[in-house]
Amino acid sequence: MSAYSPRLSRLIEALRRLPGVGPKSAQRMAFHLLDRDRQGAQLLGETLVEALGGIGRCPSCRMFCDEGENCRYCSSSRTAAGQLCVVESPADLMAIEGGTSYRGRYFVLMGRLSPLDGIGPEELGLDRLQAQLAAGEVQEMIIATNPTVEGEATAYYLAEMARGQGVRVTRIAHGVPMGGELEYVDGGTLAHALSGRTPV
Amino acid sequence: MSAYSPRLSRLIEALRRLPGVGPKSAQRMAFHLLDRDRQGAQLLGETLVEALGGIGRCPSCRMFCDEGENCRYCSSSRTAAGQLCVVESPADLMAIEGGTSYRGRYFVLMGRLSPLDGIGPEELGLDRLQAQLAAGEVQEMIIATNPTVEGEATAYYLAEMARGQGVRVTRIAHGVPMGGELEYVDGGTLAHALSGRTPV
Ligand SMILES: [Zn+2]
Ligand SMILES: [Zn+2]
Repeated sequence: MSAYSPRLSRLIEALRRLPGVGPKSAQRMAFHLLDRDRQGAQLLGETLVEALGGIGRCPSCRMFCDEGENCRYCSSSRTAAGQLCVVESPADLMAIEGGTSYRGRYFVLMGRLSPLDGIGPEELGLDRLQAQLAAGEVQEMIIATNPTVEGEATAYYLAEMARGQGVRVTRIAHGVPMGGELEYVDGGTLAHALSGRTPV
Repeated sequence: MSAYSPRLSRLIEALRRLPGVGPKSAQRMAFHLLDRDRQGAQLLGETLVEALGGIGRCPSCRMFCDEGENCRYCSSSRTAAGQLCVVESPADLMAIEGGTSYRGRYFVLMGRLSPLDGIGPEELGLDRLQAQLAAGEVQEMIIATNPTVEGEATAYYLAEMARGQGVRVTRIAHGVPMGGELEYVDGGTLAHALSGRTPV
Protein backbone atom coordinates (compact mmCIF):
# COMPACT_ATOMS: atom_id res chain seq x y z
CA MET A 1 0.00 0.00 0.00
CA SER A 2 2.95 2.29 0.62
CA ALA A 3 3.24 3.23 -3.03
CA TYR A 4 -0.03 5.16 -3.10
CA SER A 5 -0.07 8.89 -2.71
CA PRO A 6 -0.51 10.01 0.92
CA ARG A 7 -4.17 11.08 0.55
CA LEU A 8 -5.13 7.93 -1.33
CA SER A 9 -3.36 5.79 1.28
CA ARG A 10 -5.28 7.57 4.02
CA LEU A 11 -8.57 7.00 2.21
CA ILE A 12 -7.88 3.28 1.78
CA GLU A 13 -6.86 2.98 5.44
CA ALA A 14 -10.02 4.79 6.55
CA LEU A 15 -12.25 2.51 4.46
CA ARG A 16 -10.68 -0.47 6.24
CA ARG A 17 -12.33 0.73 9.44
CA LEU A 18 -15.59 -0.60 8.00
CA PRO A 19 -16.39 -4.12 9.24
CA GLY A 20 -15.61 -6.86 6.74
CA VAL A 21 -13.51 -4.63 4.51
CA GLY A 22 -9.96 -5.87 3.85
CA PRO A 23 -7.13 -4.20 1.90
CA LYS A 24 -8.39 -5.36 -1.51
CA SER A 25 -11.98 -4.24 -0.93
CA ALA A 26 -10.86 -0.92 0.52
CA GLN A 27 -8.75 -0.30 -2.58
CA ARG A 28 -11.64 -1.22 -4.86
CA MET A 29 -13.98 1.06 -2.92
CA ALA A 30 -11.54 3.98 -3.05
CA PHE A 31 -11.02 3.62 -6.82
CA HIS A 32 -14.74 3.29 -7.40
CA LEU A 33 -15.56 6.42 -5.40
CA LEU A 34 -12.78 8.51 -6.92
CA ASP A 35 -13.27 7.31 -10.46
CA ARG A 36 -16.99 6.70 -10.79
CA ASP A 37 -18.97 8.07 -7.88
CA ARG A 38 -17.54 11.26 -6.43
CA GLN A 39 -21.07 12.37 -5.62
CA GLY A 40 -21.55 9.20 -3.57
CA ALA A 41 -18.27 9.80 -1.79
CA GLN A 42 -19.32 13.33 -0.92
CA LEU A 43 -22.70 12.10 0.30
CA LEU A 44 -21.14 9.36 2.42
CA GLY A 45 -18.58 11.72 3.92
CA GLU A 46 -21.17 14.30 4.88
CA THR A 47 -23.67 11.72 6.11
CA LEU A 48 -21.09 10.10 8.38
CA VAL A 49 -20.19 13.38 10.02
CA GLU A 50 -23.88 14.30 10.34
CA ALA A 51 -24.68 10.88 11.81
CA LEU A 52 -22.06 11.18 14.52
CA GLY A 53 -23.43 14.48 15.71
CA GLY A 54 -27.06 13.56 15.26
CA ILE A 55 -27.63 9.93 16.17
CA GLY A 56 -27.72 8.96 19.82
CA ARG A 57 -29.44 6.33 21.90
CA CYS A 58 -32.94 6.39 23.28
CA PRO A 59 -32.53 6.74 27.05
CA SER A 60 -35.35 4.29 27.59
CA CYS A 61 -34.82 1.40 25.13
CA ARG A 62 -31.20 2.10 24.06
CA MET A 63 -32.08 1.88 20.34
CA PHE A 64 -30.36 4.31 17.99
CA CYS A 65 -32.44 7.46 17.82
CA ASP A 66 -32.06 10.86 16.17
CA GLU A 67 -31.17 13.58 18.65
CA GLY A 68 -34.10 15.86 19.34
CA GLU A 69 -36.71 13.34 18.20
CA ASN A 70 -38.80 10.97 20.25
CA CYS A 71 -37.93 7.29 19.95
CA ARG A 72 -40.53 5.67 17.72
CA TYR A 73 -40.29 2.40 19.63
CA CYS A 74 -41.06 4.05 22.94
CA SER A 75 -43.96 6.23 21.80
CA SER A 76 -46.97 6.04 24.07
CA SER A 77 -49.14 4.40 21.41
CA ARG A 78 -46.98 1.29 21.62
CA THR A 79 -46.70 0.83 25.34
CA ALA A 80 -50.32 -0.11 25.93
CA ALA A 81 -49.72 -3.84 25.79
CA GLY A 82 -47.26 -3.74 28.66
CA GLN A 83 -44.93 -6.06 26.79
CA LEU A 84 -41.17 -5.50 26.71
CA CYS A 85 -39.03 -7.49 24.31
CA VAL A 86 -35.30 -7.70 25.15
CA VAL A 87 -32.95 -8.12 22.17
CA GLU A 88 -29.18 -8.11 21.79
CA SER A 89 -28.81 -5.67 18.91
CA PRO A 90 -30.59 -3.01 16.82
CA ALA A 91 -30.60 -5.51 13.94
CA ASP A 92 -32.51 -8.00 16.10
CA LEU A 93 -35.05 -5.31 16.94
CA MET A 94 -35.47 -4.56 13.24
CA ALA A 95 -35.88 -8.27 12.46
CA ILE A 96 -38.71 -8.63 14.99
CA GLU A 97 -40.32 -5.33 14.02
CA GLY A 98 -40.12 -6.15 10.32
CA GLY A 99 -40.95 -9.86 10.48
CA THR A 100 -43.64 -10.08 13.14
CA SER A 101 -46.72 -8.18 14.25
CA TYR A 102 -45.21 -7.45 17.67
CA ARG A 103 -45.72 -3.77 18.51
CA GLY A 104 -44.84 -3.64 22.17
CA ARG A 105 -41.78 -2.00 23.65
CA TYR A 106 -38.15 -3.05 23.33
CA PHE A 107 -34.95 -3.00 25.28
CA VAL A 108 -31.74 -3.26 23.24
CA LEU A 109 -28.84 -4.69 25.22
CA MET A 110 -26.22 -3.66 22.64
CA GLY A 111 -24.41 -6.90 23.39
CA ARG A 112 -24.66 -9.92 25.65
CA LEU A 113 -23.15 -10.89 28.97
CA SER A 114 -19.56 -11.90 28.36
CA PRO A 115 -17.44 -11.69 31.52
CA LEU A 116 -14.25 -12.63 29.65
CA ASP A 117 -14.69 -9.58 27.42
CA GLY A 118 -15.53 -7.37 30.36
CA ILE A 119 -19.19 -7.09 29.41
CA GLY A 120 -21.29 -7.28 32.56
CA PRO A 121 -24.79 -6.11 33.54
CA GLU A 122 -23.63 -2.49 33.70
CA GLU A 123 -22.37 -2.45 30.08
CA LEU A 124 -25.75 -3.77 28.94
CA GLY A 125 -27.64 -1.07 30.82
CA LEU A 126 -29.41 -3.60 33.00
CA ASP A 127 -29.74 -1.07 35.82
CA ARG A 128 -32.05 0.92 33.56
CA LEU A 129 -33.99 -2.21 32.63
CA GLN A 130 -34.29 -3.07 36.32
CA ALA A 131 -35.69 0.39 37.00
CA GLN A 132 -38.26 -0.03 34.24
CA LEU A 133 -39.36 -3.38 35.61
CA ALA A 134 -39.55 -1.91 39.11
CA ALA A 135 -41.76 0.93 37.81
CA GLY A 136 -44.50 -1.64 37.33
CA GLU A 137 -45.60 -0.83 33.79
CA VAL A 138 -44.24 -4.04 32.27
CA GLN A 139 -46.56 -7.03 32.50
CA GLU A 140 -44.50 -9.43 30.41
CA MET A 141 -40.82 -9.44 29.54
CA ILE A 142 -40.08 -11.40 26.34
CA ILE A 143 -36.48 -12.54 26.12
CA ALA A 144 -35.25 -12.68 22.52
CA THR A 145 -31.52 -13.05 23.00
CA ASN A 146 -29.77 -15.35 20.55
CA PRO A 147 -29.64 -19.10 21.25
CA THR A 148 -25.87 -19.07 21.78
CA VAL A 149 -24.02 -19.92 24.99
CA GLU A 150 -23.67 -16.24 25.90
CA GLY A 151 -27.19 -15.43 24.75
CA GLU A 152 -28.58 -18.20 26.92
CA ALA A 153 -26.55 -17.06 29.92
CA THR A 154 -27.86 -13.54 29.36
CA ALA A 155 -31.41 -14.89 29.10
CA TYR A 156 -30.99 -16.72 32.41
CA TYR A 157 -29.73 -13.55 34.11
CA LEU A 158 -32.58 -11.48 32.65
CA ALA A 159 -35.19 -14.02 33.74
CA GLU A 160 -33.90 -13.99 37.32
CA MET A 161 -33.99 -10.21 37.32
CA ALA A 162 -37.57 -10.03 36.08
CA ARG A 163 -38.77 -12.70 38.51
CA GLY A 164 -37.21 -10.67 41.31
CA GLN A 165 -39.55 -7.86 40.30
CA GLY A 166 -42.54 -10.14 39.98
CA VAL A 167 -42.72 -9.63 36.21
CA ARG A 168 -43.86 -12.51 33.99
CA VAL A 169 -41.01 -13.76 31.77
CA THR A 170 -41.19 -15.58 28.44
CA ARG A 171 -38.56 -16.71 25.98
CA ILE A 172 -39.11 -16.86 22.22
CA ALA A 173 -39.32 -20.44 20.96
CA HIS A 174 -36.36 -22.23 19.41
CA GLY A 175 -36.67 -25.29 17.27
CA VAL A 176 -36.85 -26.53 13.70
CA PRO A 177 -37.22 -23.49 11.41
CA MET A 178 -40.44 -23.24 9.42
CA GLY A 179 -39.87 -24.92 6.08
CA GLY A 180 -36.75 -26.59 7.47
CA GLU A 181 -36.20 -30.32 7.00
CA LEU A 182 -35.37 -32.39 10.04
CA GLU A 183 -32.51 -34.22 8.43
CA TYR A 184 -30.68 -30.98 7.76
CA VAL A 185 -31.22 -29.42 11.19
CA ASP A 186 -28.33 -29.69 13.64
CA GLY A 187 -28.60 -31.99 16.64
CA GLY A 188 -28.69 -29.23 19.23
CA THR A 189 -31.66 -27.56 17.57
CA LEU A 190 -33.41 -30.90 17.19
CA ALA A 191 -32.87 -31.78 20.85
CA HIS A 192 -34.22 -28.36 21.80
CA ALA A 193 -37.23 -28.81 19.54
CA LEU A 194 -37.95 -32.23 21.04
CA SER A 195 -37.71 -31.16 24.68
CA GLY A 196 -39.80 -28.09 23.90
CA ARG A 197 -42.61 -30.09 22.27
CA THR A 198 -46.14 -28.82 22.81
CA PRO A 199 -49.46 -30.72 22.86
CA VAL A 200 -51.48 -30.63 19.62
CA MET B 1 -35.56 0.02 6.25
CA SER B 2 -38.29 2.62 6.67
CA ALA B 3 -38.54 2.03 10.41
CA TYR B 4 -35.13 3.54 11.12
CA SER B 5 -34.81 7.11 12.23
CA PRO B 6 -34.25 9.55 9.34
CA ARG B 7 -30.54 10.11 10.02
CA LEU B 8 -29.84 6.41 10.45
CA SER B 9 -31.74 5.64 7.23
CA ARG B 10 -29.65 8.23 5.39
CA LEU B 11 -26.43 6.73 6.75
CA ILE B 12 -27.41 3.22 5.66
CA GLU B 13 -28.40 4.51 2.21
CA ALA B 14 -25.10 6.38 1.86
CA LEU B 15 -23.08 3.29 2.81
CA ARG B 16 -24.83 1.41 0.01
CA ARG B 17 -23.05 3.67 -2.48
CA LEU B 18 -19.91 1.63 -1.75
CA PRO B 19 -19.37 -1.13 -4.32
CA GLY B 20 -20.39 -4.58 -3.14
CA VAL B 21 -22.36 -3.30 -0.14
CA GLY B 22 -26.01 -4.41 0.03
CA PRO B 23 -28.72 -3.48 2.55
CA LYS B 24 -27.60 -6.00 5.17
CA SER B 25 -23.94 -5.02 5.02
CA ALA B 26 -24.79 -1.33 5.06
CA GLN B 27 -26.87 -1.85 8.19
CA ARG B 28 -24.09 -3.83 9.85
CA MET B 29 -21.56 -1.14 8.94
CA ALA B 30 -23.78 1.65 10.29
CA PHE B 31 -24.36 -0.17 13.59
CA HIS B 32 -20.68 -0.98 13.91
CA LEU B 33 -19.60 2.61 13.33
CA LEU B 34 -22.23 4.12 15.62
CA ASP B 35 -21.87 1.55 18.36
CA ARG B 36 -18.21 0.58 18.35
CA ASP B 37 -16.11 2.86 16.19
CA ARG B 38 -17.29 6.46 16.19
CA GLN B 39 -13.68 7.53 15.84
CA GLY B 40 -13.41 5.43 12.68
CA ALA B 41 -16.61 6.95 11.33
CA GLN B 42 -15.28 10.44 11.97
CA LEU B 43 -12.00 9.56 10.29
CA LEU B 44 -13.72 8.04 7.27
CA GLY B 45 -16.07 10.99 6.89
CA GLU B 46 -13.28 13.54 7.02
CA THR B 47 -10.97 11.49 4.81
CA LEU B 48 -13.62 11.13 2.11
CA VAL B 49 -14.24 14.85 1.96
CA GLU B 50 -10.49 15.53 1.99
CA ALA B 51 -9.92 12.95 -0.74
CA LEU B 52 -12.45 14.52 -3.06
CA GLY B 53 -10.81 17.90 -2.85
CA GLY B 54 -7.26 16.60 -2.83
CA ILE B 55 -6.92 13.62 -5.12
CA GLY B 56 -6.80 14.18 -8.83
CA ARG B 57 -5.19 12.48 -11.78
CA CYS B 58 -1.64 12.79 -13.02
CA PRO B 59 -1.90 14.66 -16.33
CA SER B 60 0.78 12.42 -17.79
CA CYS B 61 -0.05 8.84 -16.69
CA ARG B 62 -3.65 9.34 -15.45
CA MET B 63 -2.91 7.57 -12.14
CA PHE B 64 -4.55 8.99 -9.03
CA CYS B 65 -2.25 11.62 -7.61
CA ASP B 66 -2.44 14.11 -4.74
CA GLU B 67 -3.05 17.66 -5.92
CA GLY B 68 0.07 19.79 -5.65
CA GLU B 69 2.44 16.82 -5.57
CA ASN B 70 4.44 15.31 -8.39
CA CYS B 71 3.30 11.89 -9.58
CA ARG B 72 5.70 9.33 -8.18
CA TYR B 73 5.29 7.14 -11.25
CA CYS B 74 6.29 9.90 -13.60
CA SER B 75 9.30 11.18 -11.66
CA SER B 76 12.37 11.68 -13.80
CA SER B 77 14.32 8.94 -12.02
CA ARG B 78 11.96 6.36 -13.48
CA THR B 79 11.78 7.43 -17.08
CA ALA B 80 15.35 6.50 -17.96
CA ALA B 81 14.48 3.12 -19.36
CA GLY B 82 12.14 4.59 -21.96
CA GLN B 83 9.56 1.92 -21.18
CA LEU B 84 5.86 2.69 -20.89
CA CYS B 85 3.50 0.08 -19.50
CA VAL B 86 -0.20 0.52 -20.35
CA VAL B 87 -2.67 -0.88 -17.80
CA GLU B 88 -6.43 -0.74 -17.45
CA SER B 89 -6.73 0.35 -13.84
CA PRO B 90 -4.84 1.81 -10.87
CA ALA B 91 -5.10 -1.61 -9.22
CA ASP B 92 -3.30 -3.18 -12.20
CA LEU B 93 -0.55 -0.57 -11.89
CA MET B 94 -0.19 -1.42 -8.20
CA ALA B 95 -0.07 -5.14 -8.98
CA ILE B 96 2.81 -4.67 -11.42
CA GLU B 97 4.61 -2.18 -9.21
CA GLY B 98 4.24 -4.39 -6.15
CA GLY B 99 4.80 -7.77 -7.78
CA THR B 100 7.57 -7.12 -10.29
CA SER B 101 10.79 -5.18 -10.54
CA TYR B 102 9.45 -3.02 -13.38
CA ARG B 103 10.25 0.63 -12.67
CA GLY B 104 9.48 2.27 -15.98
CA ARG B 105 6.60 4.62 -16.68
CA TYR B 106 2.89 3.80 -16.82
CA PHE B 107 -0.23 4.86 -18.60
CA VAL B 108 -3.51 4.07 -16.85
CA LEU B 109 -6.45 3.79 -19.23
CA MET B 110 -9.07 3.88 -16.45
CA GLY B 111 -11.07 1.36 -18.45
CA ARG B 112 -10.97 -0.52 -21.72
CA LEU B 113 -12.43 0.05 -25.15
CA SER B 114 -16.10 -0.84 -25.00
CA PRO B 115 -18.11 0.77 -27.79
CA LEU B 116 -21.41 -0.59 -26.47
CA ASP B 117 -20.83 1.28 -23.19
CA GLY B 118 -19.74 4.40 -25.03
CA ILE B 119 -16.10 3.99 -24.03
CA GLY B 120 -13.91 4.91 -26.98
CA PRO B 121 -10.32 6.12 -27.41
CA GLU B 122 -11.21 9.58 -26.10
CA GLU B 123 -12.58 8.27 -22.78
CA LEU B 124 -9.34 6.34 -22.25
CA GLY B 125 -7.20 9.42 -22.88
CA LEU B 126 -5.54 7.84 -25.91
CA ASP B 127 -4.93 11.27 -27.45
CA ARG B 128 -2.57 11.99 -24.60
CA LEU B 129 -0.90 8.61 -24.98
CA GLN B 130 -0.53 9.29 -28.70
CA ALA B 131 1.14 12.62 -27.92
CA GLN B 132 3.58 10.92 -25.57
CA LEU B 133 4.49 8.32 -28.17
CA ALA B 134 4.91 11.07 -30.77
CA ALA B 135 7.27 12.97 -28.45
CA GLY B 136 9.79 10.21 -29.04
CA GLU B 137 10.83 9.43 -25.45
CA VAL B 138 9.20 6.01 -25.36
CA GLN B 139 11.33 3.19 -26.78
CA GLU B 140 9.03 0.34 -25.82
CA MET B 141 5.33 0.25 -25.04
CA ILE B 142 4.36 -2.75 -22.92
CA ILE B 143 0.67 -3.62 -23.17
CA ALA B 144 -0.67 -5.09 -19.94
CA THR B 145 -4.42 -4.94 -20.53
CA ASN B 146 -6.39 -7.91 -19.22
CA PRO B 147 -6.76 -11.04 -21.36
CA THR B 148 -10.50 -10.51 -21.84
CA VAL B 149 -12.31 -9.87 -25.11
CA GLU B 150 -12.37 -6.12 -24.48
CA GLY B 151 -8.85 -6.09 -23.08
CA GLU B 152 -7.58 -7.87 -26.21
CA ALA B 153 -9.43 -5.46 -28.49
CA THR B 154 -7.89 -2.58 -26.57
CA ALA B 155 -4.46 -4.17 -26.87
CA TYR B 156 -4.91 -4.47 -30.62
CA TYR B 157 -5.88 -0.82 -30.91
CA LEU B 158 -2.94 0.28 -28.73
CA ALA B 159 -0.49 -1.81 -30.74
CA GLU B 160 -1.63 -0.26 -34.02
CA MET B 161 -1.28 3.20 -32.50
CA ALA B 162 2.27 2.61 -31.28
CA ARG B 163 3.33 1.03 -34.57
CA GLY B 164 2.03 4.11 -36.32
CA GLN B 165 4.52 6.10 -34.26
CA GLY B 166 7.33 3.67 -34.87
CA VAL B 167 7.43 2.59 -31.22
CA ARG B 168 8.29 -1.00 -30.34
CA VAL B 169 5.30 -2.80 -28.82
CA THR B 170 5.25 -5.81 -26.51
CA ARG B 171 2.46 -7.63 -24.70
CA ILE B 172 2.88 -9.31 -21.32
CA ALA B 173 2.83 -13.10 -21.59
CA HIS B 174 -0.28 -15.13 -20.89
CA GLY B 175 -0.26 -18.83 -20.15
CA VAL B 176 -0.25 -21.38 -17.37
CA PRO B 177 0.26 -19.55 -14.06
CA MET B 178 3.42 -20.37 -12.13
CA GLY B 179 2.62 -23.21 -9.74
CA GLY B 180 -0.54 -23.98 -11.68
CA GLU B 181 -1.37 -27.51 -12.72
CA LEU B 182 -2.23 -28.13 -16.36
CA GLU B 183 -5.27 -30.23 -15.62
CA TYR B 184 -6.90 -27.37 -13.72
CA VAL B 185 -6.13 -24.64 -16.23
CA ASP B 186 -8.96 -23.67 -18.60
CA GLY B 187 -8.75 -24.60 -22.27
CA GLY B 188 -8.39 -21.05 -23.55
CA THR B 189 -5.38 -20.40 -21.35
CA LEU B 190 -3.87 -23.74 -22.32
CA ALA B 191 -4.34 -23.06 -26.04
CA HIS B 192 -2.75 -19.64 -25.56
CA ALA B 193 0.17 -21.17 -23.63
CA LEU B 194 0.73 -23.75 -26.36
CA SER B 195 0.67 -21.33 -29.28
CA GLY B 196 2.93 -18.96 -27.32
CA ARG B 197 5.55 -21.63 -26.60
CA THR B 198 9.19 -20.52 -26.57
CA PRO B 199 12.39 -22.49 -27.30
CA VAL B 200 14.31 -23.80 -24.27
ZN1 LIG C 1 -36.78 4.02 22.83
ZN1 LIG D 1 2.01 10.15 -13.55
